[in-house]
Amino acid sequence: MTTERNIIGQREDPDLPRYAGIATFALLPRLEEVDHADVAVVGIPFDSGTSFRPGARFGPAHIREHSRQLHPYHQFHESFPFRDQQVADAGDVGVGPYGIEQAVEEIHSTVARLIEGGSRILALGGDHTIALPLLRAAAAVHGPLAVLHFDAHLDTWDTLHGAAIWHGSPFRRAAEEGLLDFEHCQHVGIRGGVYGPDELADDRRVGFESIRSEEFQHRSIESIADQVRRRLGSGPVYVSIDIDVLDPSQAPGTGTPEVAGITTRELFAVLRQLRGLRIVGGDVVEVAPAYDHAGITGLAAAHTAWEVLALMGLWGPAGDRSGGAAQE
Amino acid sequence: MTTERNIIGQREDPDLPRYAGIATFALLPRLEEVDHADVAVVGIPFDSGTSFRPGARFGPAHIREHSRQLHPYHQFHESFPFRDQQVADAGDVGVGPYGIEQAVEEIHSTVARLIEGGSRILALGGDHTIALPLLRAAAAVHGPLAVLHFDAHLDTWDTLHGAAIWHGSPFRRAAEEGLLDFEHCQHVGIRGGVYGPDELADDRRVGFESIRSEEFQHRSIESIADQVRRRLGSGPVYVSIDIDVLDPSQAPGTGTPEVAGITTRELFAVLRQLRGLRIVGGDVVEVAPAYDHAGITGLAAAHTAWEVLALMGLWGPAGDRSGGAAQE
Amino acid sequence: MTTERNIIGQREDPDLPRYAGIATFALLPRLEEVDHADVAVVGIPFDSGTSFRPGARFGPAHIREHSRQLHPYHQFHESFPFRDQQVADAGDVGVGPYGIEQAVEEIHSTVARLIEGGSRILALGGDHTIALPLLRAAAAVHGPLAVLHFDAHLDTWDTLHGAAIWHGSPFRRAAEEGLLDFEHCQHVGIRGGVYGPDELADDRRVGFESIRSEEFQHRSIESIADQVRRRLGSGPVYVSIDIDVLDPSQAPGTGTPEVAGITTRELFAVLRQLRGLRIVGGDVVEVAPAYDHAGITGLAAAHTAWEVLALMGLWGPAGDRSGGAAQE
Amino acid sequence: MTTERNIIGQREDPDLPRYAGIATFALLPRLEEVDHADVAVVGIPFDSGTSFRPGARFGPAHIREHSRQLHPYHQFHESFPFRDQQVADAGDVGVGPYGIEQAVEEIHSTVARLIEGGSRILALGGDHTIALPLLRAAAAVHGPLAVLHFDAHLDTWDTLHGAAIWHGSPFRRAAEEGLLDFEHCQHVGIRGGVYGPDELADDRRVGFESIRSEEFQHRSIESIADQVRRRLGSGPVYVSIDIDVLDPSQAPGTGTPEVAGITTRELFAVLRQLRGLRIVGGDVVEVAPAYDHAGITGLAAAHTAWEVLALMGLWGPAGDRSGGAAQE
Amino acid sequence: MTTERNIIGQREDPDLPRYAGIATFALLPRLEEVDHADVAVVGIPFDSGTSFRPGARFGPAHIREHSRQLHPYHQFHESFPFRDQQVADAGDVGVGPYGIEQAVEEIHSTVARLIEGGSRILALGGDHTIALPLLRAAAAVHGPLAVLHFDAHLDTWDTLHGAAIWHGSPFRRAAEEGLLDFEHCQHVGIRGGVYGPDELADDRRVGFESIRSEEFQHRSIESIADQVRRRLGSGPVYVSIDIDVLDPSQAPGTGTPEVAGITTRELFAVLRQLRGLRIVGGDVVEVAPAYDHAGITGLAAAHTAWEVLALMGLWGPAGDRSGGAAQE
Amino acid sequence: MTTERNIIGQREDPDLPRYAGIATFALLPRLEEVDHADVAVVGIPFDSGTSFRPGARFGPAHIREHSRQLHPYHQFHESFPFRDQQVADAGDVGVGPYGIEQAVEEIHSTVARLIEGGSRILALGGDHTIALPLLRAAAAVHGPLAVLHFDAHLDTWDTLHGAAIWHGSPFRRAAEEGLLDFEHCQHVGIRGGVYGPDELADDRRVGFESIRSEEFQHRSIESIADQVRRRLGSGPVYVSIDIDVLDPSQAPGTGTPEVAGITTRELFAVLRQLRGLRIVGGDVVEVAPAYDHAGITGLAAAHTAWEVLALMGLWGPAGDRSGGAAQE
Repeated sequence: MTTERNIIGQREDPDLPRYAGIATFALLPRLEEVDHADVAVVGIPFDSGTSFRPGARFGPAHIREHSRQLHPYHQFHESFPFRDQQVADAGDVGVGPYGIEQAVEEIHSTVARLIEGGSRILALGGDHTIALPLLRAAAAVHGPLAVLHFDAHLDTWDTLHGAAIWHGSPFRRAAEEGLLDFEHCQHVGIRGGVYGPDELADDRRVGFESIRSEEFQHRSIESIADQVRRRLGSGPVYVSIDIDVLDPSQAPGTGTPEVAGITTRELFAVLRQLRGLRIVGGDVVEVAPAYDHAGITGLAAAHTAWEVLALMGLWGPAGDRSGGAAQE
Repeated sequence: MTTERNIIGQREDPDLPRYAGIATFALLPRLEEVDHADVAVVGIPFDSGTSFRPGARFGPAHIREHSRQLHPYHQFHESFPFRDQQVADAGDVGVGPYGIEQAVEEIHSTVARLIEGGSRILALGGDHTIALPLLRAAAAVHGPLAVLHFDAHLDTWDTLHGAAIWHGSPFRRAAEEGLLDFEHCQHVGIRGGVYGPDELADDRRVGFESIRSEEFQHRSIESIADQVRRRLGSGPVYVSIDIDVLDPSQAPGTGTPEVAGITTRELFAVLRQLRGLRIVGGDVVEVAPAYDHAGITGLAAAHTAWEVLALMGLWGPAGDRSGGAAQE
Repeated sequence: MTTERNIIGQREDPDLPRYAGIATFALLPRLEEVDHADVAVVGIPFDSGTSFRPGARFGPAHIREHSRQLHPYHQFHESFPFRDQQVADAGDVGVGPYGIEQAVEEIHSTVARLIEGGSRILALGGDHTIALPLLRAAAAVHGPLAVLHFDAHLDTWDTLHGAAIWHGSPFRRAAEEGLLDFEHCQHVGIRGGVYGPDELADDRRVGFESIRSEEFQHRSIESIADQVRRRLGSGPVYVSIDIDVLDPSQAPGTGTPEVAGITTRELFAVLRQLRGLRIVGGDVVEVAPAYDHAGITGLAAAHTAWEVLALMGLWGPAGDRSGGAAQE
Repeated sequence: MTTERNIIGQREDPDLPRYAGIATFALLPRLEEVDHADVAVVGIPFDSGTSFRPGARFGPAHIREHSRQLHPYHQFHESFPFRDQQVADAGDVGVGPYGIEQAVEEIHSTVARLIEGGSRILALGGDHTIALPLLRAAAAVHGPLAVLHFDAHLDTWDTLHGAAIWHGSPFRRAAEEGLLDFEHCQHVGIRGGVYGPDELADDRRVGFESIRSEEFQHRSIESIADQVRRRLGSGPVYVSIDIDVLDPSQAPGTGTPEVAGITTRELFAVLRQLRGLRIVGGDVVEVAPAYDHAGITGLAAAHTAWEVLALMGLWGPAGDRSGGAAQE
Repeated sequence: MTTERNIIGQREDPDLPRYAGIATFALLPRLEEVDHADVAVVGIPFDSGTSFRPGARFGPAHIREHSRQLHPYHQFHESFPFRDQQVADAGDVGVGPYGIEQAVEEIHSTVARLIEGGSRILALGGDHTIALPLLRAAAAVHGPLAVLHFDAHLDTWDTLHGAAIWHGSPFRRAAEEGLLDFEHCQHVGIRGGVYGPDELADDRRVGFESIRSEEFQHRSIESIADQVRRRLGSGPVYVSIDIDVLDPSQAPGTGTPEVAGITTRELFAVLRQLRGLRIVGGDVVEVAPAYDHAGITGLAAAHTAWEVLALMGLWGPAGDRSGGAAQE
Repeated sequence: MTTERNIIGQREDPDLPRYAGIATFALLPRLEEVDHADVAVVGIPFDSGTSFRPGARFGPAHIREHSRQLHPYHQFHESFPFRDQQVADAGDVGVGPYGIEQAVEEIHSTVARLIEGGSRILALGGDHTIALPLLRAAAAVHGPLAVLHFDAHLDTWDTLHGAAIWHGSPFRRAAEEGLLDFEHCQHVGIRGGVYGPDELADDRRVGFESIRSEEFQHRSIESIADQVRRRLGSGPVYVSIDIDVLDPSQAPGTGTPEVAGITTRELFAVLRQLRGLRIVGGDVVEVAPAYDHAGITGLAAAHTAWEVLALMGLWGPAGDRSGGAAQE
């Protein structure tokens, strides 16, 4: 475990405004600049699994650019997400746009290497296809995983247009590969369309319960967070957040926007109730900048990533916090 | 009644992605491609009644384009809005932009023909002026109508700039012509500006009660839906949804946006409580694409139309569902 | 006190549509066209105190352009904000972009002259730096002021990049100068990032209590408004509304947007509970049009200003309403 | 003739930046603020004659806002367009959107009053329909007029959708009414589509010769300007500039954009060769701001108007320059 | 050969404005509505070969929507492109986004079927990958083809990121497969970046000569058109137009924009000099609507397609005009 | 002189697409990653000297992001701008937004340090104010400089709103300080407004000749380039390119756009004629991303910088090419 702790750049150079400098995530050090990273933030600019609006390949750059406004102190948790743990920007996975299967291999091997280096991973997508290699890499270390999945869509579908692996199937494929803990997977924010009730049945079969977007209309955050906490249990959790869980007004820059979504205020309120979650990896995906306006989707994604990082920094006793695979 | 039931195109040709093909509403068949349509979705590209930002003439094309993402199964109602009834796209009414009165005549005669053909009508606007000829055509068959009106504005005003018929007067003109059932008209989402309390009094006089947008801040959806249901009663209902009932953040692409609106989640939650409503016609109006961003207004309007179609498909016992004027 | 009362222009010339004519705020008369203004709306096109996205110098023009849709009658208060008091547009303060200190001087002297003329001031920014000279001018007449501050950010920070006066420090500087009543200052909507808990402690020390944005998730408007009312007390109040208190989906056109904000519906609901507040001045700031879309930020700001003007028109008994400094 | 000469506001108040203050055209005085105006710039926010994308009703406000950057000295002509003649902003004609014929009447009577006051008129549209009442008013004083018409479209069409007067017919109607001098009318920049050669024949019959947009590809500006000058002759000229004469890349904010247009550099180069033209009135029309980006169409229109005003200020000997109807 | 000739819809129903109705290309009949089509316009919504900004899958819908403004008569050629030959809209090829090779197969078989039906093809992309199956289908009938290729890029590159077939390689693959006539291929508008001179040598080896974009700065259109005409010769020609041949100011909505491009005026001027070209097929590709503004790229692409159709309608003697494969 | 030569990153890692990775300029190495840089590209995110639309502080990040598409080989010069010389990205100068004079000091000292390190500087702005400290640093090494200045504006004005140093005065201040060689300064593209002929006279007095934008309408590139070459002479040259020299259609993302500008094709054509220029430093300034669309301004600026770098790489014999101050 490293003893070096970083804080956001501005602190160190008070003359450098937040809009200045080449943008790493939250202006954090690059992975090669630190001895060790408890958490590696890694971009995965891959969107060839997209079924509707492509463009999430530009997501990592967009999220980084809009993460300039993040700050060191988390007022709700009264914690320092970047001081309590060393977080670093590992750059982007070098993955081309042609061929989903090869890309999934490439992502998997790069991410597995980072995990071997002792880092937990928070990936910035890219489309939701990338969750499959990330789950593979995390489950290889931790065994079957609980999944906390914020999304408008189930993403447990079968093949589409001849592809078994696409951005609507990662959790089905993961379930089939034994990467998921069937008793502990939870969707939040579901609302997107389906062809029939069989798709919902399939979804339950691979291990997911759903809290639908419309439930936020009449249930309290506490009630929702309680259900999530109970469902996820005490084992290792993978957190996957599709930015389209948000309403299109809050996140227009995404590939399959669905109206009647939840708000960032609701999303963060739920996340903040989940202290103690043993998060071993995660992703924030489906940011398609060409459809964004004034950076609001980029801001939402950057801030969402920060909320997950804050939870990762709060994980259990000090000994547990260091986090990477080696400590398991 | 036709025995043919259509579903969305993708089902039939699994190789055709949703973004492919020439866009009819929800990729449904055109009216001329089916024997009979229980519901005809018809575009009315007319915006010459607009008092502020024009452009709703491009609304039907925009809504169709953004209806590509609609799906066959309604998870809340556990119904198939396009299987339970035959829905078809009747194309656009051929109405020019010059002369409101002639346009209203033209819209009326086209719509009346469609109703005679046995279809209930869901119109895609165009500005709110089009509600007048639609009400005329529906009332000719059903008698005075209850109206469920979602809007930021009353639309019961008198003349403006010398015009008796414009997008702020359809319900006043309809009331004067005896098309409305004075005991059963309901506004939801009202908030736009007025010149004085007399306008509110006038509005009540022509038969409307109002649930204001700000009531959504402290009342439950159930309470609001109950009030609506009681007010509308059990007779034939015309549903008119001005997209500006939504907050401008959710529907920027409209002609007279008003801040402090309701959300699609609230709108759909109310609509979903209204199963059993005897909807004999309706409209979704005031989508002005030039002010939209990333299609979010188009998506909201397409989905809103789908929610109304779902209600139309659920209307009462099986015998009632077939719907068109001939069955009355 | 003037006996002349103006109403919005359209009333007087029913042939002039709202989109026509050169835009003053709400199409009100200019200051030089009236004998006396109870309230002077003044633009302050200054944004050199901005730390992130500049552009609020174009805010006054943008707000005026989007105030065309405001109407005379306030349905909640059942009042006429422009009839109960004479409101006029005083144009813009002639302030250049170079040199914050000189600009603050210039703003102060112009505003002080307007107050001497018997008007209360509602300023349209411009960045939040302008609150300092406005507070100086108001406090010179009324003594230490209660402040009702809607904002995502504390704005009680110390120097940044060598500047003591910038858009993040106006209330700290005001506190140091004795312009604030330490027992009666209230933030609403706070959520933006900080470097550590000391910034929060500093903030409390200069007199502010905070109602955070996330509290709107579980508290009622009544509870929030009650807390605000108790905190502000019965003395003179300065109302300062940074448009970034709103969620970026509702106000993308601003300099330091922060996700998870409040809505215009929430903002207005709180404001409407504050009848009787002795508002002696105020501002609506940080509208940066280059980041706006379809005018939604401009509309939100114009309507927010109108809600404040409505409160100003309702202030206490008739004798008190006339408002300006001379009446104190 | 007035002896008072105005210059742009900034000169008088060096502390007021160009972006400050309520926008009149070029920050010029309003008509009511001067004794006499040689030229009155008047907005005509009317777009109900539009056949495709409406929205030019917001044109005058948009052009004024983007005229803030105009300066006093014309470097090519070595003249001061606002010093050589008194130019003032006459505000907007109060014309509603309902009913083309009434609108044309209203525009005519307002403009005729301004001409009677001794001013030549430069109108800011609005759609091209407004050229008809402007021609009526100018021809009433000067007799049949030469017309210099920059446009992608002929605008000599007959009725459309039942309307005789619309934005594609002003010059045909004018010709029929005897307002045009058949020997001296010239189109420049023509390229828009037609149904057949008869439309071109009709166009020639009402007095127009055409210089097509594609001719700018191989002819010199001198050659084009020579042809224009010869065609227009020495009599009174009305200059009508549809902003869609420009390529859509330079003027996206318009109602019927046509690719393969001319550039502002080409447009101004032609205009600058036309010193001595006896311009008795003119218009810059079809600016539809909802389709603009970064104000580039607004800037192009404002600068185009300024180039026309420069020509108006250069008209013949000193005695001729004063210009208005009274001097004829 | 069919005796049926269509003209654009509006002619037939003068009450239907251009913005009304479901958009086929140029509002032409669908293929299934005519006996025979001399030319079939077919959309190919495929963009998985894109190396930079994806999104051209939405190109066909966007071009159709912006083809509403096309007219029947071509003023330069004095011809009726839709009367001289029957043109129909064949809809979109049903091709999914996953797997380039399968997509190329699918496109090829669909297009080959259309050609067998007796139609020449004008395809609307989609990315440039689609040129390969189109060339295969055309060469199968006509033998090795001359290619007239307007593009900023060579598109004769070898593999990228492991893919042999992508949007930068169609002409290399076509050359390797013997589909090109090495003596008669011509690039126009080339300017995009390369890694070294070997790429230029490779390009010449597969049969292309280049007229670079910068040559339009000093050469006449005549000189350029002469060179093109000589190079293409008198055999069958395939015309492939990547919309990025245009300057990004004129066509921002594309995947790999390159500054310093040519204009639509230049492009059309060259095309118009090519009467008599034996065009046996073609494409207009790389329209990515998410990056477009105000439809200017869509308009440019629609109009470009129309210019190609005009040339196709002018091909040689009457007997030659009917065009499809059967007549060869 | 370093023997290490870099090429663009993609070459080294063929699996990394251009859109991947954290964006340095042209994906070049950072300064700290190379032994020596012949040219240091440095961002200067400062815009407090802006007189109209601010926002150029975000220019460096925007240009870097849009430099991803640059390639290694220059086809016109047949050179490798990044192989012939070592170019590296030096990151951003750490300069705050408050206080122009301090900022100018800070910029000067940072840049002087880079020059002492042996690098020539190409700065990415930021507003044009930054040219002053850059000229100071370059002249300290080279003595009075010839200046090649592409701009719509003279930028030789005196004080504005009380500031002696702002983005309209850098060359006047530089002239007063003796940094310019009065015989060898050249403006290209001038067209922006002035208050009177005295400003033009002042401009000539400080050493500039002007080639106006309108001259590109009738003069050949050769003639213009000849004039420039003769004027600049054989001494050290500073190249300063304000992106607003381009037409607003090509560069909407800038602070004071001026219509009737030049094109990138024209700009590059002139630059390419200037081989052999002894460029000792330069800047590309005034990119304000908030007003950009689809990145076209960013692309234009990135490509412009690359053209200047290509010239810098071609400077004289090998011994001269190494370039930095030490070699003088």
